[in-house]
Amino acid sequence: MRRTTTVGEIDADVLAYTAGQDRVLDLALVEADCMGTAAHAAMLARVPVTPPLLTADDARRIAAELAGLADEARQGRFKITLADQDVHLAVERRLTDKLGDIGKRVHVCRSRNDQVAVDMRLFAKERLLEAVSAASVLARTLLTLARRHKKVPMVGRTHMQPAMPSSVGVWASAWAEGLLDDIELLKAAYDLNNQCPLGSAASYGVPLPIDRQLVSDLLGFAKPVHNVLHANQARGKVESVILSALGQVMLTLSRLAQDVILFSMPEFGYFRLPQEFTTGSSIMPQKRNPDVLELVRAKAAKVLAHASLVADIIRAAPSGYNRDVQETKAPFLEGVDITIASLRILPPLMAGLQVDRAALRRAFSPDVFATDRALELVTGGMPFRDAYHQVKATLGEGAAQDPDRALAAKTHLGAPAGLDFAALATRAKHADSWATRERRRHEKCRDRLLAPLAPRSHKSGLNS
Amino acid sequence: MRRTTTVGEIDADVLAYTAGQDRVLDLALVEADCMGTAAHAAMLARVPVTPPLLTADDARRIAAELAGLADEARQGRFKITLADQDVHLAVERRLTDKLGDIGKRVHVCRSRNDQVAVDMRLFAKERLLEAVSAASVLARTLLTLARRHKKVPMVGRTHMQPAMPSSVGVWASAWAEGLLDDIELLKAAYDLNNQCPLGSAASYGVPLPIDRQLVSDLLGFAKPVHNVLHANQARGKVESVILSALGQVMLTLSRLAQDVILFSMPEFGYFRLPQEFTTGSSIMPQKRNPDVLELVRAKAAKVLAHASLVADIIRAAPSGYNRDVQETKAPFLEGVDITIASLRILPPLMAGLQVDRAALRRAFSPDVFATDRALELVTGGMPFRDAYHQVKATLGEGAAQDPDRALAAKTHLGAPAGLDFAALATRAKHADSWATRERRRHEKCRDRLLAPLAPRSHKSGLNS
Amino acid sequence: MRRTTTVGEIDADVLAYTAGQDRVLDLALVEADCMGTAAHAAMLARVPVTPPLLTADDARRIAAELAGLADEARQGRFKITLADQDVHLAVERRLTDKLGDIGKRVHVCRSRNDQVAVDMRLFAKERLLEAVSAASVLARTLLTLARRHKKVPMVGRTHMQPAMPSSVGVWASAWAEGLLDDIELLKAAYDLNNQCPLGSAASYGVPLPIDRQLVSDLLGFAKPVHNVLHANQARGKVESVILSALGQVMLTLSRLAQDVILFSMPEFGYFRLPQEFTTGSSIMPQKRNPDVLELVRAKAAKVLAHASLVADIIRAAPSGYNRDVQETKAPFLEGVDITIASLRILPPLMAGLQVDRAALRRAFSPDVFATDRALELVTGGMPFRDAYHQVKATLGEGAAQDPDRALAAKTHLGAPAGLDFAALATRAKHADSWATRERRRHEKCRDRLLAPLAPRSHKSGLNS
Amino acid sequence: MRRTTTVGEIDADVLAYTAGQDRVLDLALVEADCMGTAAHAAMLARVPVTPPLLTADDARRIAAELAGLADEARQGRFKITLADQDVHLAVERRLTDKLGDIGKRVHVCRSRNDQVAVDMRLFAKERLLEAVSAASVLARTLLTLARRHKKVPMVGRTHMQPAMPSSVGVWASAWAEGLLDDIELLKAAYDLNNQCPLGSAASYGVPLPIDRQLVSDLLGFAKPVHNVLHANQARGKVESVILSALGQVMLTLSRLAQDVILFSMPEFGYFRLPQEFTTGSSIMPQKRNPDVLELVRAKAAKVLAHASLVADIIRAAPSGYNRDVQETKAPFLEGVDITIASLRILPPLMAGLQVDRAALRRAFSPDVFATDRALELVTGGMPFRDAYHQVKATLGEGAAQDPDRALAAKTHLGAPAGLDFAALATRAKHADSWATRERRRHEKCRDRLLAPLAPRSHKSGLNS
Repeated sequence: MRRTTTVGEIDADVLAYTAGQDRVLDLALVEADCMGTAAHAAMLARVPVTPPLLTADDARRIAAELAGLADEARQGRFKITLADQDVHLAVERRLTDKLGDIGKRVHVCRSRNDQVAVDMRLFAKERLLEAVSAASVLARTLLTLARRHKKVPMVGRTHMQPAMPSSVGVWASAWAEGLLDDIELLKAAYDLNNQCPLGSAASYGVPLPIDRQLVSDLLGFAKPVHNVLHANQARGKVESVILSALGQVMLTLSRLAQDVILFSMPEFGYFRLPQEFTTGSSIMPQKRNPDVLELVRAKAAKVLAHASLVADIIRAAPSGYNRDVQETKAPFLEGVDITIASLRILPPLMAGLQVDRAALRRAFSPDVFATDRALELVTGGMPFRDAYHQVKATLGEGAAQDPDRALAAKTHLGAPAGLDFAALATRAKHADSWATRERRRHEKCRDRLLAPLAPRSHKSGLNS
Repeated sequence: MRRTTTVGEIDADVLAYTAGQDRVLDLALVEADCMGTAAHAAMLARVPVTPPLLTADDARRIAAELAGLADEARQGRFKITLADQDVHLAVERRLTDKLGDIGKRVHVCRSRNDQVAVDMRLFAKERLLEAVSAASVLARTLLTLARRHKKVPMVGRTHMQPAMPSSVGVWASAWAEGLLDDIELLKAAYDLNNQCPLGSAASYGVPLPIDRQLVSDLLGFAKPVHNVLHANQARGKVESVILSALGQVMLTLSRLAQDVILFSMPEFGYFRLPQEFTTGSSIMPQKRNPDVLELVRAKAAKVLAHASLVADIIRAAPSGYNRDVQETKAPFLEGVDITIASLRILPPLMAGLQVDRAALRRAFSPDVFATDRALELVTGGMPFRDAYHQVKATLGEGAAQDPDRALAAKTHLGAPAGLDFAALATRAKHADSWATRERRRHEKCRDRLLAPLAPRSHKSGLNS
Repeated sequence: MRRTTTVGEIDADVLAYTAGQDRVLDLALVEADCMGTAAHAAMLARVPVTPPLLTADDARRIAAELAGLADEARQGRFKITLADQDVHLAVERRLTDKLGDIGKRVHVCRSRNDQVAVDMRLFAKERLLEAVSAASVLARTLLTLARRHKKVPMVGRTHMQPAMPSSVGVWASAWAEGLLDDIELLKAAYDLNNQCPLGSAASYGVPLPIDRQLVSDLLGFAKPVHNVLHANQARGKVESVILSALGQVMLTLSRLAQDVILFSMPEFGYFRLPQEFTTGSSIMPQKRNPDVLELVRAKAAKVLAHASLVADIIRAAPSGYNRDVQETKAPFLEGVDITIASLRILPPLMAGLQVDRAALRRAFSPDVFATDRALELVTGGMPFRDAYHQVKATLGEGAAQDPDRALAAKTHLGAPAGLDFAALATRAKHADSWATRERRRHEKCRDRLLAPLAPRSHKSGLNS
Repeated sequence: MRRTTTVGEIDADVLAYTAGQDRVLDLALVEADCMGTAAHAAMLARVPVTPPLLTADDARRIAAELAGLADEARQGRFKITLADQDVHLAVERRLTDKLGDIGKRVHVCRSRNDQVAVDMRLFAKERLLEAVSAASVLARTLLTLARRHKKVPMVGRTHMQPAMPSSVGVWASAWAEGLLDDIELLKAAYDLNNQCPLGSAASYGVPLPIDRQLVSDLLGFAKPVHNVLHANQARGKVESVILSALGQVMLTLSRLAQDVILFSMPEFGYFRLPQEFTTGSSIMPQKRNPDVLELVRAKAAKVLAHASLVADIIRAAPSGYNRDVQETKAPFLEGVDITIASLRILPPLMAGLQVDRAALRRAFSPDVFATDRALELVTGGMPFRDAYHQVKATLGEGAAQDPDRALAAKTHLGAPAGLDFAALATRAKHADSWATRERRRHEKCRDRLLAPLAPRSHKSGLNS
């Protein structure tokens, strides 16, 4: 029944089952793995033991090789073989091929567990910053839309039924503010992630005086995780926190998508999608379908499901590393990709949305003004409950009112005539600036760690 | 097939289906509802229209009545009838019974939707602060345990298999640091929640110059939600963010519970649970079962499921209020209760845990020291991969080593001999201080809002 | 920090945490528990040991007492005290109070674990049969609606956009067929559940010749679970299978609800809900909201989440009973209740739905006929792809066609003019008949087991 | 910010977002798509219209081409280009390339929506039959293990604590019976799936007299789905039902894996995994880790999460096709693959498990016999509750008893000495035979549909 093929020392079926998609997924982690290895090597060269674990020159040569590997990866030329299993062994093998014994020395004082932990955190840093920037761009696109149509009346709904006079400005900036809240969650996830796990080794530390603070600093983390066991078992947990935050972003996008799909049905006709964001049908010649938005709705379910899956996987795991955690990698990477792709596909769609003012205005039936009428009675001195019942008893008698006037009357903070677009835009801009600063800091660390050998390497290097 | 009974104007079956458990659940919200109503009334009394929506004296009388209702609720005497449907109508009915027209005026410029939104946020504030404090207590309990047994050796495991020498100190403080991370997530959720939604009315604002900033200040929120539609549709979203953070706390507790269950099996015997935390069997006379810990494990699944349920409920909901969101209340309240109860049941259990040092020490087989032996060879100059293979080839030949010496050799940051318990304890203490400060601020707002009428009410009140 | 109160021998906090809601939830299980105990007692009286474990007369007296307790429960008078913890101890206590030593003997050869297992299965049998009947009623209501409006045109949609001519008959009977599929899943879950777990004791059987087949027969199960350990650890699993099947029912209802909400928006106006199924707003006098349908949508999410929660709880549980499984009870009972309540609230709503034929007809724009036009060209000999492109190029040029003619032309199986309502109705009727037969069989077992003492009990009884 | 590249007529970003992984995933569906197209063509050739939609000869030529494409796919040579988007357009393009106008005619009377629906159902049929066979193999492997060690004592546990005497036979056959239950669920899912959706076109049928019953028969389905709209919107639903059934299989495997991991820890030593099913550590030379079993545990969470995700995606979707449903394909395919792979990796692992009888026997402490002692007292006439308390009071006084005698005394149905392995094995065998019969029936349909052109085609073919 079983094939008896083996790859290296391992049964091929077992390898296929255990290695899973790592060979493919790990291609996203090559740069991070090189950074982690370079920082580890630089630190090993400073461990005060004799003979040294690595010399400063060894560390520089390693960094230069790693710089090359990261380059290969950026050009799509880095390969992980089935025998490699994952990025960590692939990188170690390449170093050993090139540098011999020096390559073999790199793995001292660490394990694959803490390599993958640091790789995931470095990867997550970059991607979270991309998500923040993309969310900021979308928020600003929505605010532009809101500001341009701030006085365009739009029936406000509750229970999907017409409720009260509102505006396109209120509608579009509500999603923008939702994204600004989501950005705060992304930043909280970023902070949690921004701790260096390296030095945990197999979760229990090593009997050598390694310098975990130095590694953390070299990699640009805010600080090291303290407890070595916690450093290891936070894996999966950090991923699920990040996915939860991304899931909240997708929740906002999904509801926005639901609204745009709804309000671009011909029965409403409020919005028309840019042609290039619709797709046709293989059987119905007339169709222009809002596939992108439908997929946003479905992909939101997926990111949320992945957040919950990752937490489930580790919920009953005992302390220390368990292989179960490997299965958190694919949903994590996919959740990150989906969210960023969704954040990036929507700005041109929303910027290109045609707003049909006439259709929006036509939707105002007299009933939409019922509450405003009751409140008028109230300002004349009638208790609200009585005004409510009087208006209810005479529904249908009132004539439709002027939506513009109704909107102009709502001047309080956050209401149709009380929206502060500038303040919201400033929040969006600050988020983007923060992300840009953090990204630069990260890239600076990367470029220092993955430095090619300078012509006279004895004068340069990390130690100088 | 259907009963035709009605309650008020509504079909009884429909009411039973729609009101659901609100009458029971809402008992947890009475104080919050009274606070929200008092702040709204105080604000109404300041709206610059003539005749006034409420006089300052009306507002004071309302506040005094609300103070009485909140008192009733604290004593368990407040009732919500089936006809009331929920806490909001129950409070309004009581005010109207007592104050006549004044009571009827309170509901002007707001809807049940924004009442429930503000009630949930006020409730969440208090409960999140309780959760932070309880998490801080548990973290400190774990740190005490860790410090007391910091030199007690414990086999560190990976894949549930013996891996490397570790200590009870590492084990116990790892969970403590996990909780400290969780507290950061609770605080991020607290910040998101700490925005006042009132003034959204039915999601679209009102044509009267209400002062949303004032209401937010009176209730002690950091700021108002800006956009009125966002204020309303953030409901469900905020709850799912909070539940996700609580879910992370439960994830930490679940894994801790899993470990304690495992390591108190007789085959390990590392720990013995305090007698009062075990339960017997109806058929097996000898049993002392770790039911509390098993339930922590299962309840963690429940809180995580609730977080995901709440997000699912609103994922495809279009803009504006949808009744679907009502179904988020029960899982939210239950998730909050479970987490706080779990955080409170564990400190005495962990404080009473008996640690069997002999059993812990017995578990050290020679293999546990294999990595240490490889690293010894490395410090002698051998590349790590070669040392690894040499030790692997001679497994079983080495004698067991001294665990104490092995632990003492791991001195780097976060390792068995490099743990900084004081730093972790300080983080826990700061979290608790923060929660205490926020709680006092909240209670001060509450006491000012729900003030009984002073003997000479014309001189006192909110305006003074 | 902790209260030191105890209830019986157990710490009050621990009891509150562990007993959870059992005292309340278990009230739904009293009859089932009495049946299980009566069957167990009847079997004990036949175990061929000397002295007998119970005499035939003991068993009859026990059955008579249990009949009384079940009666109390039906009248809402059965109480479970905090010290009882659950229904099993409550029933045993009552038996012991009344029958002294005889009561104490009942628990021999079983444990609470297999009591709760059999209680849940008996409860599930009854409730699943109710669900099948209720689903059948709703399916028939939908078929009646479909048949009445089989020729009423309705724009068929894909991507929520107008697609092709269809009918109310197609729309309404699609949901009916969905429910018929769901009923098959309910029956599969019923079959899985219909195995008697009793006799597992604490999961490992007992050293006495108990007759598990007899107990299974007395309780009306199809057969006993075979392996005693499996009998016990199927708990949770069976519940999650049932919840998954119920979840599929809710999925059908949710999508039906979504459609009715959508198509009764004024922009469509296809349907009008019966007044008694709508609710008003506390602020907007004009509102009649579809709350019931919105809640169906949300409650569907809850049942599906509960199905997944129950599976998660047991996923990582090792063999044998684990207390974790207790947490499956509340979501199971709630999932069952929600589904049956939802199935029962919808028939009067759907039967009372007003169908606005004019509005439905108005929605037919020329584009809806585009595919029909392409197919006309095809019947003239043109390849479909060419016809498709020709129609696409001339969109907007064609006049609107007659929807009636378009519907009449679709005569193939399952199309607007090819629906076999009678065949679908027969499937629904068969399902109901099956449920009725099973229910009678179950009630016959119950009535035989819970028989009051006959005037001359020595002549009657189970053994005769 | 956006690339303006286009592929065909479609914006490249939009295509990347919408086509997703279809190009890769759809490679699994080529044969199914060819079968569906061949059956559709054969039916079109019989539609009684003039001129014919296809001639019989056209249909045969199409079938022959499709046979070639299916062959290519089996050899891994079939490619789906980005411009193709999916398997349906890829197959249609290839047919048009080869057969010109004939190829263009194939798509008449159907849409991509019902193509993908039938492809998924055909694919699911095959894979479910594989799952049933694989589950049957594993069940029989477990029964062989159980029978071989039926008298080997093993401490039965509850709450993970030692509870009562049991055997390896009970333990291993419990999982086997669990799998037999799971197989019933797979069969129920198979029955639901075994209905042909073709002929739904875009969900609303076509104005031509197509023969849906014929297509269903040609493809070997039990019957067509009746209502055309239901045929379309059952997509997603069927997938989630199948995933739920597969999830139950994984639940069984996960718990089995949890037990094997636990009981092969050195502290228990009951089992030793075959060497080839363990993996080493990159840092710890001594480690042999149970990675396969850990991954089974984690992958179970994934399949269950996918089941729930698929249901979530469609929960709030309105009637008719929605693009959201595309996102159900990847989790469905992955869930199927994971389950079958897990079912296949375990038989050699379980068959190779070494059972350490001495270690199992050593684990019997006197307490394990406490319940047996109480039951002895009961057979002497003491009420069970009194016996229970007497044994409890003298715990630790009794000597360990003979586990063999304890097992031999448990003779009732399903207990250690009352297991009917043959009956369980027969159930497993019947399931496999059923799957084999169904598979042959399916393959016969496939081979008839995808027939290469016979030398004298006028004598052969589907019509003869």
